[in-house]
Amino acid sequence: MKAKLLKAEILATGNEVLTGVVADTNSAYIASRLEETGIEVRRHVCVGDDPELIADAVTEMCKRSDLVIVTGGLGPTGDDITAGAVAKAAGKPLVFSKEAHRSMSAYFERRKKQFQRSDTKQAMLPEGAECIANEVGTAAGFSIKIGKCHLFAMPGVPREMKWMLDAKVLPRTEALAGSARMYTAKKTVSVFGLPEAVVGERMAGFDEAFPDAAYGIRVSFPEIFVTVSTRKQDPAEADSTVNSACSWIVARIGDCAFSDNGASLPEVVGRLLLSQKETIAVAESCTGGLVAHLLTSIPGSSGYFLFSGVTYSNNSKMNVLGVSEDTIFANGAVSQEVAREMALGTRKVAGSTYAVATTGIAGPGGATKGKPVGTVCIGLAAPDGVESITLELSFGDRGMNKRVFAFCALDMLRRKLLQGRK
Amino acid sequence: MKAKLLKAEILATGNEVLTGVVADTNSAYIASRLEETGIEVRRHVCVGDDPELIADAVTEMCKRSDLVIVTGGLGPTGDDITAGAVAKAAGKPLVFSKEAHRSMSAYFERRKKQFQRSDTKQAMLPEGAECIANEVGTAAGFSIKIGKCHLFAMPGVPREMKWMLDAKVLPRTEALAGSARMYTAKKTVSVFGLPEAVVGERMAGFDEAFPDAAYGIRVSFPEIFVTVSTRKQDPAEADSTVNSACSWIVARIGDCAFSDNGASLPEVVGRLLLSQKETIAVAESCTGGLVAHLLTSIPGSSGYFLFSGVTYSNNSKMNVLGVSEDTIFANGAVSQEVAREMALGTRKVAGSTYAVATTGIAGPGGATKGKPVGTVCIGLAAPDGVESITLELSFGDRGMNKRVFAFCALDMLRRKLLQGRK
Repeated sequence: MKAKLLKAEILATGNEVLTGVVADTNSAYIASRLEETGIEVRRHVCVGDDPELIADAVTEMCKRSDLVIVTGGLGPTGDDITAGAVAKAAGKPLVFSKEAHRSMSAYFERRKKQFQRSDTKQAMLPEGAECIANEVGTAAGFSIKIGKCHLFAMPGVPREMKWMLDAKVLPRTEALAGSARMYTAKKTVSVFGLPEAVVGERMAGFDEAFPDAAYGIRVSFPEIFVTVSTRKQDPAEADSTVNSACSWIVARIGDCAFSDNGASLPEVVGRLLLSQKETIAVAESCTGGLVAHLLTSIPGSSGYFLFSGVTYSNNSKMNVLGVSEDTIFANGAVSQEVAREMALGTRKVAGSTYAVATTGIAGPGGATKGKPVGTVCIGLAAPDGVESITLELSFGDRGMNKRVFAFCALDMLRRKLLQGRK
Repeated sequence: MKAKLLKAEILATGNEVLTGVVADTNSAYIASRLEETGIEVRRHVCVGDDPELIADAVTEMCKRSDLVIVTGGLGPTGDDITAGAVAKAAGKPLVFSKEAHRSMSAYFERRKKQFQRSDTKQAMLPEGAECIANEVGTAAGFSIKIGKCHLFAMPGVPREMKWMLDAKVLPRTEALAGSARMYTAKKTVSVFGLPEAVVGERMAGFDEAFPDAAYGIRVSFPEIFVTVSTRKQDPAEADSTVNSACSWIVARIGDCAFSDNGASLPEVVGRLLLSQKETIAVAESCTGGLVAHLLTSIPGSSGYFLFSGVTYSNNSKMNVLGVSEDTIFANGAVSQEVAREMALGTRKVAGSTYAVATTGIAGPGGATKGKPVGTVCIGLAAPDGVESITLELSFGDRGMNKRVFAFCALDMLRRKLLQGRK
């Protein structure tokens, strides 16, 4: 038996968001929280500080949905006009709310701040609305029924909105969902080394295999995340479905799938190093510190990360890492020979179990005959010797090339660590 | 005489955005660019990967507006269904577009990559649509007239969308605006070292001083960008207004304003090094390669960047940089003494004009008595000697602390380079 889901829409108000001065991050947060509690989000809308346009948007959204969540425009300044616009859409006047006034007074008292005259305006709510007290700011929220739709209005300040959503609004929407309340299970497979189009192709057949689950593909270059979700009344059943679906995906993607809990490649490499009690050092030329930055962005990385040398100049490759001048002269700085000597030298200098080294051409300049922009040589030194590869990958911009080079180096290390575990 | 503005709406499609897995940053970018060119944005909408809902949204938006900009759903995978939905709203079939196919083939040829079968799907456009070639990715965009409204569809990948908007769509929308077209002048002051609230306070009086200009404050942590813009029919008059306004802002902000052309701190440091023909090396402990990554993200940085050592372990501080064991033992690794020796050692190893060194506690762990999370010591070695500072800055998360530490080191270098210029 499939219970009927509540349908929700989210309205962000404010000229700052509309004209793109700030991006609307509130709606994404609200959507993800509603989805987690088994409410289906159907649409986001954003309009400016115009009472007519807000009232129009509220009217049409309430006609289509069971729930409408509004953010913004509840503050003390002249462009805060949401309460009036919602009142208009509800066909009600604005009235003074003792409760909203009390909520504000309590906030000011706790903060030992003076009430401004302009603050009183925030106590005017649509007639029939229920005040939602704000314990972390001045502007109270409210809820009101318009037709069959339940509307919740919250402040636009992200910190206040998040508090009010979690503490006050979600308990109410979950109560409204009642027996239709569903449990959402969600799990993410992380992929590196395939283009998005190929990942999409490998997903062919998913809908037939898992008719009651859905998937989405998100690219955070150069990583790709495939998230599977399902909504069921029985949590165990939902978990079991996403687990099977993730196993199916990992089998399709193969060894380019490196995590089934949505971890990033630097996290996975860090966990492998930590669990094997091994250490790593890095020598970077073309990646310019990015491999080290990615590895050291993981809390606790000082447990396995010993050293990285960003050796742009040939001199620093020789002086710091002990790369021989002859090797550079004979093969060029961008060569597997130099990558190997960099890796070996780094492992020695740092006293680490493993060392990876990158040397390549991130662009836009620097290409030479036979070595186009996008060429990278990676060396990997380990207790059992040193290996190296050359890749030609060009993503058309220096930043993307640097990123993909760094991830290739991390992936080479990951594959080596997996062998070590066997 | 005020010309009538074109009215635009923006539609973002995709389940990932709808369900809040990612925030919609495209719409904000598009809105700000449209506003700059004198087009009035009236509404943003977001719907999921559902052809019916996309078609419904397109139909209603085209009825209300002169322009509709759609992003997302043009890729090769099964959930990319925007072209079909727009075709439905336009009452047209999807047809194979030779031009879209050519655009894709050219892209693949440049990249020397194999066409996947699924990529062909991206060449299906609504009948009567004009193909908009994509030079930075595979999915072509398109434009089509629905009723009186001009609709433009672009890929959802931010990098591709931005390229297509600037190179292909805005010239077309500006042509549509015709005589209503205004010239927008815009200039950005870059700030580091003040909280956003303080920057906001310093802007008090701006509206009175420059009634025909507007400003927006954007934070790209830890940098703050204050952008001034004005719209006038006379370009020279518009430029003159924003130039005066920027001078006014720089005077208010003081020496925390480091650029009046919107440059980032690593760019400004790079330009100073290049113009003074000096070189830099970096020793990083707590910043873990981020300083090097920031510096080497600037094209041409191999002209001044020689070396960075990411020396997490005490051993690597001693072996690579020659920091003395006694100094570490007497003062602890997080100390001005160690920062100074790291900077001096790095300058020597790399043979550079300047060397900066960071040692600190990015958190969440690692705090000791008297050295809380957020403590950073920075050393700067120069031809005239070595200096050092200790800062206590905690932004409550490892990533933010790393970033602010790295920018503090770059800012210390920037101030030194400015002295050198005098």
